[in-house]
Amino acid sequence: MGSFPRADWLRAARRALTDAPHEAFGYGGPRGRPELRAALADYLARARGVHADPDRIVVCSGFQHGLMLLAAALHARGARAVAVEPYGLDVYWRRLREAGLRTPALTLDERGTRTEDLDARGPGRPAAVYLTPAHQFPLGGALPPDRRAAAVDWARSSGGLVLEDDYDGEFRYDRQPVGALQGLDPERVVYAGTTSKSLAPGLRLGWLVLPRDLVADVLRAKGDADWACGALDQLTLAEFLTSGAYDRHVRAMRLRYRRRRDQLVAALADRAPEVRVSGIAAGLHAVLELPPGTERSVLRAAALHGLQLQGLDSYRHPDAPRRASGGPDGLVVGYATPTDSAWTGALDALCRVLP
Amino acid sequence: MGSFPRADWLRAARRALTDAPHEAFGYGGPRGRPELRAALADYLARARGVHADPDRIVVCSGFQHGLMLLAAALHARGARAVAVEPYGLDVYWRRLREAGLRTPALTLDERGTRTEDLDARGPGRPAAVYLTPAHQFPLGGALPPDRRAAAVDWARSSGGLVLEDDYDGEFRYDRQPVGALQGLDPERVVYAGTTSKSLAPGLRLGWLVLPRDLVADVLRAKGDADWACGALDQLTLAEFLTSGAYDRHVRAMRLRYRRRRDQLVAALADRAPEVRVSGIAAGLHAVLELPPGTERSVLRAAALHGLQLQGLDSYRHPDAPRRASGGPDGLVVGYATPTDSAWTGALDALCRVLP
Repeated sequence: MGSFPRADWLRAARRALTDAPHEAFGYGGPRGRPELRAALADYLARARGVHADPDRIVVCSGFQHGLMLLAAALHARGARAVAVEPYGLDVYWRRLREAGLRTPALTLDERGTRTEDLDARGPGRPAAVYLTPAHQFPLGGALPPDRRAAAVDWARSSGGLVLEDDYDGEFRYDRQPVGALQGLDPERVVYAGTTSKSLAPGLRLGWLVLPRDLVADVLRAKGDADWACGALDQLTLAEFLTSGAYDRHVRAMRLRYRRRRDQLVAALADRAPEVRVSGIAAGLHAVLELPPGTERSVLRAAALHGLQLQGLDSYRHPDAPRRASGGPDGLVVGYATPTDSAWTGALDALCRVLP
Repeated sequence: MGSFPRADWLRAARRALTDAPHEAFGYGGPRGRPELRAALADYLARARGVHADPDRIVVCSGFQHGLMLLAAALHARGARAVAVEPYGLDVYWRRLREAGLRTPALTLDERGTRTEDLDARGPGRPAAVYLTPAHQFPLGGALPPDRRAAAVDWARSSGGLVLEDDYDGEFRYDRQPVGALQGLDPERVVYAGTTSKSLAPGLRLGWLVLPRDLVADVLRAKGDADWACGALDQLTLAEFLTSGAYDRHVRAMRLRYRRRRDQLVAALADRAPEVRVSGIAAGLHAVLELPPGTERSVLRAAALHGLQLQGLDSYRHPDAPRRASGGPDGLVVGYATPTDSAWTGALDALCRVLP
């Protein structure tokens, strides 16, 4: 975020403001600006393999808003549960519960979330499953191909949906990006993306790419007018995407984050060689596995050094067993947000607090 | 909206983007940007007589969002009803009902909404009353001083709240602006404003000025982060306000709308002298009183001429009696939105369809 492309964004804003049609300043429709949906359809197909024509895109103000819309639409259709990953953000589980949906957690093994355990039958059957297939948050693995297929198979046979949260899909370092799960079956997968990792959370812009038969229900949940998303930012992002500025920015950020990741890995290898780092093939954070029972004390030490770190335990779903006997504790280290000037000091402090 | 100040807005955006601190690009807090709340506090005190220190301001994405936040906060406190005006926007009544609140309507006489009928006792007592004191929507009158006082007295004696929707308070033509009701008692009145009339609905920016003891509840309803309002537009509006560009724009728009109003009144006097025009001392719309029983046929004729008009009946609350015997039908004519090129033709078409 220290690298928000202020000059390029302003250039896009100037162009967008100049070109904006009269009606763009009025109450927008709940789908979001057509210019942005067209630009996203093109970009998402190209960069993420998403089957995304503009008619099935609904603009929202970030993932949480998209999740609330989807939860309302599912609940209105009679859904009563959405399965979730055993580690994740509890604020999302809370949003689902506030919409009247239970959030049973799948289980985990060393290959990631066990989507093959999804059950197509039974009264407690969830209506959807929430997944972070490209880069599990926070553990960091990519969902293996057989488990991607299992999730889609489950959705097909049960009439359920997969909700794919592609929060950092553009940031893969070690090989070609893992394509979006949505490409496997656009009628059974909801694809969700935002600018929060690629540009800045402060923009409050995200998008849902929906199965055709879900679009009307989500628009109904959003309401008569687009009361959530400002037209000017939408138009600016559209211009930013179509001008190529977005691709350039993502490339630059990928290099920057990759460099930070490499610095993190090198510093740890040098100063804390016992600590295993995982989840680093992609994304903006790494998981540092800690000796069992040390997570809390490391977090306390980190806080004393002014480091904002989270332990894996704070992302554990109540259904999920503690990774007790033998399973390591872990530290979630985000490396995107510090400014360049803060980064070196943060890295040094991190190495100090590790056991 | 044909007059959105594109160049001035862009100038403010450049300044805002240049000056924005690093953290502005991150997840914002639910109150909204401090720069914007400070600028609004100053502006609202100066222009509308609102007692508005920044700590009691919550930024939202327009009035409807603010209403939803407030409704959720009131419901969480145990409220079960909000009294409304007998004419208004049914989408607001719907939002209140969706939050679990009944929406009983007050009654109307020739002086406006009868706030003196609010009852401080009884089990059906509303927790709040929604009012448009400066310029009743859609009828167009200002709430007389004794009825402003009655609403505040009711709130004080009942522990209730007044929700003041100041949607077009800046646009008063014939005398000094009617100050905000909130100035009478900031602890019993919620003041709500937006940029939808003064700048453009497409911005999706509004604000609530709250009694101190309601701030925490509204923030809770808004959630942990500001998932609704983009930081850049907030910073740009702050700069737009503090630089004086907002005042200049409002002055220019006031002249422009006043000229349109005068053209409307002159055209009607010339070509439809029987039609009485009301609600024209302020705002962006007028009410044309029609002979009883003609509203529907005039609306049909207007639609055939491509005019987007609403009849008064479409704003009538289910509780409110039809303005039958003797009471005229009416046409609500907005004069802000047409471009200059469309305006003359629209005015001509309007005169044609009048009886």
